[in-house]
Amino acid sequence: MAKLSNYINGQWVNSYSDETLDVKNPASQEVIAKVPQGSVQDVQKAAEAAAKAFPEWRNVPAHRRVQYLFKLKTLLEDNIDDISRTIVLESGKTFGEAKAEMQRAIENVENACGIPTMMQGTFSEDIARGVDEFMIRQPVGVCACIAPFNFPGMIPFWFLPYALACGNTYIIKPSEKVPLTMTKVVQLMEQLDLPAGVVNLVNGTKEVVDGILQHPAIRAISFVGSSNIARYVYSQGALYGKRVQAQGGAKNPVLVLPDADIEMTSQIITDSVYGCAGQRCLAASTIITVGEHKQITESLVEAAKNRTTGFGLDEASLMGPVITPESKNRVEQLIQQSVKDGGKLLVDGSNAKVSGYESGNFILPTIIEDTPLDSLVTQTEIFGPVMSLIHLKDVDEAINFINNGPYGNAACIFTSSGASARKFRHDADAGNIGINIGVAAPMAQFPFSGWKDSFFGDLHGQGMHSVEFFTQTKVVIERWLKEWTRKF
Amino acid sequence: MAKLSNYINGQWVNSYSDETLDVKNPASQEVIAKVPQGSVQDVQKAAEAAAKAFPEWRNVPAHRRVQYLFKLKTLLEDNIDDISRTIVLESGKTFGEAKAEMQRAIENVENACGIPTMMQGTFSEDIARGVDEFMIRQPVGVCACIAPFNFPGMIPFWFLPYALACGNTYIIKPSEKVPLTMTKVVQLMEQLDLPAGVVNLVNGTKEVVDGILQHPAIRAISFVGSSNIARYVYSQGALYGKRVQAQGGAKNPVLVLPDADIEMTSQIITDSVYGCAGQRCLAASTIITVGEHKQITESLVEAAKNRTTGFGLDEASLMGPVITPESKNRVEQLIQQSVKDGGKLLVDGSNAKVSGYESGNFILPTIIEDTPLDSLVTQTEIFGPVMSLIHLKDVDEAINFINNGPYGNAACIFTSSGASARKFRHDADAGNIGINIGVAAPMAQFPFSGWKDSFFGDLHGQGMHSVEFFTQTKVVIERWLKEWTRKF
Amino acid sequence: MAKLSNYINGQWVNSYSDETLDVKNPASQEVIAKVPQGSVQDVQKAAEAAAKAFPEWRNVPAHRRVQYLFKLKTLLEDNIDDISRTIVLESGKTFGEAKAEMQRAIENVENACGIPTMMQGTFSEDIARGVDEFMIRQPVGVCACIAPFNFPGMIPFWFLPYALACGNTYIIKPSEKVPLTMTKVVQLMEQLDLPAGVVNLVNGTKEVVDGILQHPAIRAISFVGSSNIARYVYSQGALYGKRVQAQGGAKNPVLVLPDADIEMTSQIITDSVYGCAGQRCLAASTIITVGEHKQITESLVEAAKNRTTGFGLDEASLMGPVITPESKNRVEQLIQQSVKDGGKLLVDGSNAKVSGYESGNFILPTIIEDTPLDSLVTQTEIFGPVMSLIHLKDVDEAINFINNGPYGNAACIFTSSGASARKFRHDADAGNIGINIGVAAPMAQFPFSGWKDSFFGDLHGQGMHSVEFFTQTKVVIERWLKEWTRKF
Amino acid sequence: MAKLSNYINGQWVNSYSDETLDVKNPASQEVIAKVPQGSVQDVQKAAEAAAKAFPEWRNVPAHRRVQYLFKLKTLLEDNIDDISRTIVLESGKTFGEAKAEMQRAIENVENACGIPTMMQGTFSEDIARGVDEFMIRQPVGVCACIAPFNFPGMIPFWFLPYALACGNTYIIKPSEKVPLTMTKVVQLMEQLDLPAGVVNLVNGTKEVVDGILQHPAIRAISFVGSSNIARYVYSQGALYGKRVQAQGGAKNPVLVLPDADIEMTSQIITDSVYGCAGQRCLAASTIITVGEHKQITESLVEAAKNRTTGFGLDEASLMGPVITPESKNRVEQLIQQSVKDGGKLLVDGSNAKVSGYESGNFILPTIIEDTPLDSLVTQTEIFGPVMSLIHLKDVDEAINFINNGPYGNAACIFTSSGASARKFRHDADAGNIGINIGVAAPMAQFPFSGWKDSFFGDLHGQGMHSVEFFTQTKVVIERWLKEWTRKF
Repeated sequence: MAKLSNYINGQWVNSYSDETLDVKNPASQEVIAKVPQGSVQDVQKAAEAAAKAFPEWRNVPAHRRVQYLFKLKTLLEDNIDDISRTIVLESGKTFGEAKAEMQRAIENVENACGIPTMMQGTFSEDIARGVDEFMIRQPVGVCACIAPFNFPGMIPFWFLPYALACGNTYIIKPSEKVPLTMTKVVQLMEQLDLPAGVVNLVNGTKEVVDGILQHPAIRAISFVGSSNIARYVYSQGALYGKRVQAQGGAKNPVLVLPDADIEMTSQIITDSVYGCAGQRCLAASTIITVGEHKQITESLVEAAKNRTTGFGLDEASLMGPVITPESKNRVEQLIQQSVKDGGKLLVDGSNAKVSGYESGNFILPTIIEDTPLDSLVTQTEIFGPVMSLIHLKDVDEAINFINNGPYGNAACIFTSSGASARKFRHDADAGNIGINIGVAAPMAQFPFSGWKDSFFGDLHGQGMHSVEFFTQTKVVIERWLKEWTRKF
Repeated sequence: MAKLSNYINGQWVNSYSDETLDVKNPASQEVIAKVPQGSVQDVQKAAEAAAKAFPEWRNVPAHRRVQYLFKLKTLLEDNIDDISRTIVLESGKTFGEAKAEMQRAIENVENACGIPTMMQGTFSEDIARGVDEFMIRQPVGVCACIAPFNFPGMIPFWFLPYALACGNTYIIKPSEKVPLTMTKVVQLMEQLDLPAGVVNLVNGTKEVVDGILQHPAIRAISFVGSSNIARYVYSQGALYGKRVQAQGGAKNPVLVLPDADIEMTSQIITDSVYGCAGQRCLAASTIITVGEHKQITESLVEAAKNRTTGFGLDEASLMGPVITPESKNRVEQLIQQSVKDGGKLLVDGSNAKVSGYESGNFILPTIIEDTPLDSLVTQTEIFGPVMSLIHLKDVDEAINFINNGPYGNAACIFTSSGASARKFRHDADAGNIGINIGVAAPMAQFPFSGWKDSFFGDLHGQGMHSVEFFTQTKVVIERWLKEWTRKF
Repeated sequence: MAKLSNYINGQWVNSYSDETLDVKNPASQEVIAKVPQGSVQDVQKAAEAAAKAFPEWRNVPAHRRVQYLFKLKTLLEDNIDDISRTIVLESGKTFGEAKAEMQRAIENVENACGIPTMMQGTFSEDIARGVDEFMIRQPVGVCACIAPFNFPGMIPFWFLPYALACGNTYIIKPSEKVPLTMTKVVQLMEQLDLPAGVVNLVNGTKEVVDGILQHPAIRAISFVGSSNIARYVYSQGALYGKRVQAQGGAKNPVLVLPDADIEMTSQIITDSVYGCAGQRCLAASTIITVGEHKQITESLVEAAKNRTTGFGLDEASLMGPVITPESKNRVEQLIQQSVKDGGKLLVDGSNAKVSGYESGNFILPTIIEDTPLDSLVTQTEIFGPVMSLIHLKDVDEAINFINNGPYGNAACIFTSSGASARKFRHDADAGNIGINIGVAAPMAQFPFSGWKDSFFGDLHGQGMHSVEFFTQTKVVIERWLKEWTRKF
Repeated sequence: MAKLSNYINGQWVNSYSDETLDVKNPASQEVIAKVPQGSVQDVQKAAEAAAKAFPEWRNVPAHRRVQYLFKLKTLLEDNIDDISRTIVLESGKTFGEAKAEMQRAIENVENACGIPTMMQGTFSEDIARGVDEFMIRQPVGVCACIAPFNFPGMIPFWFLPYALACGNTYIIKPSEKVPLTMTKVVQLMEQLDLPAGVVNLVNGTKEVVDGILQHPAIRAISFVGSSNIARYVYSQGALYGKRVQAQGGAKNPVLVLPDADIEMTSQIITDSVYGCAGQRCLAASTIITVGEHKQITESLVEAAKNRTTGFGLDEASLMGPVITPESKNRVEQLIQQSVKDGGKLLVDGSNAKVSGYESGNFILPTIIEDTPLDSLVTQTEIFGPVMSLIHLKDVDEAINFINNGPYGNAACIFTSSGASARKFRHDADAGNIGINIGVAAPMAQFPFSGWKDSFFGDLHGQGMHSVEFFTQTKVVIERWLKEWTRKF
């Protein structure tokens, strides 16, 4: 099996590193590719190519640059099934989840087609007699994203379309666990006939990450991953003078009030907790009830038990495996620990066996009730199909609990009360709020607004924030002597 | 030869009117179609269909509505040659001009794809303790455009893409002189599978216009034509309580300073004056020199003489005929009058004969020098390939002359001086300013900003103005009692 | 008693008209001033002064222009009690209502201080290689407002601060019924040392209105009044080529659901219906219940009966008289008619006598129940302290009833249900929606968004709409030859 | 002489540190105050007070919060002379420079009064059937600025007004060299009756800086100073998870073309180079000529020689001393080194003696010609009244030289050519561009846009960037079940 290549300066080239890692199907442990560990030299070559392509690409008018994105949208749509199958194979999620992921990617391509409007600067005439002042947005130069394993197809598209449309050149560093999807996507993108060096792909692990953080030509970095690494990327990027937007982990609470529609709530929460096997930064994790909770508990238990788990390309599968055996092991240990800490295991998904996929990293839907508020499982990001179900006294106590946690990615409430919903969205310290919504994923025209340890930086992905992040403002103050017009 | 149909509620239907007009090729007088005079009943049916389609179309999410526009862009691109040939046949312009026109149409489709961002309202939290206020943009309902003959393919697209993307339903009323282009375009649009009634096409003349002005279901009208009719449409539309944007005529001045690059200036001005046989609302019409003017005069004369005029589908043709024999006659009378008034006919394009197209409405490039400032030809919109060349003392006198005219569509200056350019753009009373530009046509993200008698209304076509025009703001003030959250 | 003067070109001058009207205290019929009927010559002088002042005022940098507004805010605050007393004397409302009105005026002055940001145009670099395009906002010229009697101090400030800050010069035409307030305000504004002609005040009646509509130097008109006159002003202004924003009448419905807080709802509705004696374009007029309505009915009746009515400067007064004896007579006839039409007079405020103010135009709070939906009183704007109370089947029927009315100024709902509130604000055809709010008056940063016959035009007062209305966009396309930089 | 206090939680309190530094008049070395070195405990107390004040301050409606700013504007205007004298005494600049500085401070207060408009979020109705999405801007919490010595009165106002208006609470850390100005300003601000803890002042040196960088309650830091410290603040702030905007040093080039107006250019450049004794981050530093340069050289030399240097409160003084003897010494060494490196000392301002102020840190205007491009003086930020005058071949070489430097604060050009100006502003790698402007300081509505090593972060001070920096976006996705509205 040949190892994957890098795409640099319009060419597929070998990594400078000879070391490789196996890329495995999480449902079967089958090795489906070999990915280079990567080298700082790979980064250098990509950064040089991108830097070289920048001055010319920057000068392509914005409405010409977005022509590539209009074509890219069609290209991704035409190949969505093929890309989605690749996502399933290397990430383990279901085909439906993979397609939904790619749909989100495409939405960001569509949104970035609006850059000619979004990128406009501002103009003030006559700030003094005969003096004008205006602000132009110019691209920052070479930008890069360092992507995680859980959305191999979507996450680079939170950034890349905006970066390109704004006139930057780009380097994608996919997760070494799921490098195939971006390889396939970049292969498709060759049909766009972008100038060489505008888009580059570098595979690898930490050495590549550090190479990106340190290379002086790279001016802006978008990162998505765990909070620890996000903080590392943020501070290291800052040390090297770059702008950084770094999304971290999450532990998303959902508050269920007695006036919610129980059936709908249960279904939506179940989809949120177990979708993508819980490996989503917007997955519901801690379900909090207030007041009566017998009915919702029973409904959640039933839904968890009925959820079909299996290989993502099997049509019946509603949930796939987690990404690695290590991940499976870590999640199962967390489940065990939670019981030791006093939690009640209402549904135990440990030690799952999926017929035909006995080596897969499967964990079945799990529900633990009444875990102590300060216990490990209640405080830690699990990133697996595990629901904590806790019961609190009232809305104030629930919001207090939510706001004391370290993360702030999403917080959701289920209620029919306008007042409760308003209080929740006003007071909850999270940047993405769902009201009767299970996965509060912002549309492409809105910033993906993680707060607290779920985000480091100030400008988020998507929307107008992307334009601010991928451009630098240039202010021009212009005066012309009146007398100069009298020369003729 | 069958008469053209209307497209109403997703069906091609006959007009209620039996009367027809001939559609003729201006290069040959060949009758290429018959167009119904149209009836108020046609408008009623279209308005009813559009009104019926509105509630459902409005509720289609904006990012779904723009999917039709993404497809429309591809559709227009794939058929640009075919549409452009139709434009040539009925309007007389050259194939290159027709394609350029369609390119502008497509740019507006592209720009309207950004509606999910452009249409966003605003939100203020806590305008008082516990009270929020927000503004939503909702579509206005049924909208209509009444289009002129000179850009059969482009002008409806200044409005329609934004109207649809914002959730309105639409009626197109093309000029009866050039109805074939929109017929073809709407035929293509059937491939989009828009819901029935969302787009409608009604052919006809004044009765149709008045029907549109008066029908209560039609809430907004976009008009492009002469200033007299624009004012009529504006005030009649107002009488019936509608919002109206009405573009009128123009008489665009170009100021040439001695420090301009003569060769480039001459070429750009020539293209501006004679492009589309002068039948453009942004065509340069009055060329004003200041200071030395021998060189630019010679250069303009030479360029005019060398411009090849002929049938628009002949590759050699740089200019086609004017729209009708009546128009040709009127322009030639204006040329004669100008000589009587004291003008010098430097180049006389009257009585042109184009071989093979002896019946065509051809006028060759014409230059008249030193026409008195208050003479008819200097003050009137000619809408033909006629340049007035006048010589003034200095920039102040030139701007004064420009600002005393009734129109304010475009004004251009040619200079290498930053100071002169700034003074001109600051002081000239026109909404579209060109600096070393011959046709100051705003990109789709900018409003097409006619001033004075060139525009009636306050919100122009294109850009964010379109969003304001095609939506109505709804302000919501929302308060929830704090106590209501304590119920559980 | 001397007649009031006009303020033109920085001077207090007599009207050209010798005819006067009495200005009377509505609580006592005491004549407190004489106001000239006004003449078209007054308008001409004001328009000339404003037109003369325009070129210089326009060139004052925006951040210098707003310095006058910063001072105006302080001036109005320092004199709010004095102005408010004048409002009470001529309009009849209570002192508290008058102060609240002036507070709204001041908010608009504050908001217009932000014009240097709000007025910025947009800039696109490199729309083609080496070509830039930008949009500047320039003032439109002379603007005027024609104000109604019900908010003598506030309504001109919906427009004037923005108009001035944007660089326009201005003419105020107050209602001839309440001319004293603007006379006092303009007297105060003399302390600002604005250049002569920037602000002008012309008193008078229809001849002055028509003078404003027809004068060619006046480019934009803001009107507030009845729908009939609004439509007249809109179409006449259009006929003369002006931009117009014309606010008309209203008949604002309030929907009360059984899940609302009855006590709070009753109090808020009562304040809305009877505030300013019902003479507000945002006053609640038709109260609609759905489901059980005994409790809310009783509560409303009690509140109506307990409302103290009297002279506006008496501290105990919560409600004053209506503006004229004619108005009182008309309202009382409407009450009588409603009973004939089948309405039940739960509280009859006719034939009121207020001790010490026996000649005042007082009507006490009135409630009529079960008026037929198509009866005059249910359909007509009453503009007096009269509540129609009707009972409908469900929310759909209520919204249907609301949307079938001719007006669309405000619509409010009282409920604790997020779903009901959302449905209402999504579907109700009104531009200002209140959710548990009685008077849905937008903050200064939002457009005052009347719909249907409550507004003619497309750009409303306040907020960014004001900036669009009081400026015209100028698009500049600029190209400089690269070669020109090589000269040295 | 008593040491200065801190202002924490609405009280003037002593620093926890007993160590003090002398604050000296740079014109005389007179000790005018003692400032505490400061302690991390001071920061803790301030951060606690600010954190405690935050929840309540955040809930004050924005249009109420800006009332404090409206008053602050008046307060600063009324006391501008007094504050300016304090600035002169501790910073050494002239009284005119100090007043101009305060004027800039006031402009930012004015601009922040527009926050109710600027802070609005966005709203998209129906992102799916029945689902709405909106974005709210909420304040980030406790914010702090670490200010430099050169603009004691202005620089905190680049940040503080926006921070407060957006609902944050604030800590000011002035330079220990110039602590008196902010002490005086905060004393004045006590008259505003802001709630305790909303604004705090902590004096001190590095320990205080590190305390701010590390305190978990402080969420955002604005820094202005040298590039080295800016980078330190940026990366340390990032390490502690904060948002940071850090302005660094500069070495601003000015390009003079032969077609510039020599007299005006010379005067403007001289003001730019020697204003504030060169201690401005926007000061012109390297003057680059292209082509003929005899005349401009002579003119600059003459202007430098004629500039009166002295104590800032003497009316005749156009330039004061540099901040400290160490600074004077460093600058004079740089002058000497430049001569060793080959520079020609056209005007030598070393060893200046100002009568009556013999101990002052005075350096007279200095011009060094033809310093090698890679020499220390051409590359280093001097921060003193020293001009490097270099002669290059053409515009391309000049831009190339500019873009190879490490800084990117400002770059200016003097020319009458539109083409040269456009090329320069398009290509020069600096965020603040002046065209025939000597100090390209953006108005308050524009971001102060340093680039490269002149700025670390992505959101600048002033304008809409301030709003983004001082707020965090919260996205809300809201769905209400349709069925819930049918309950009655």
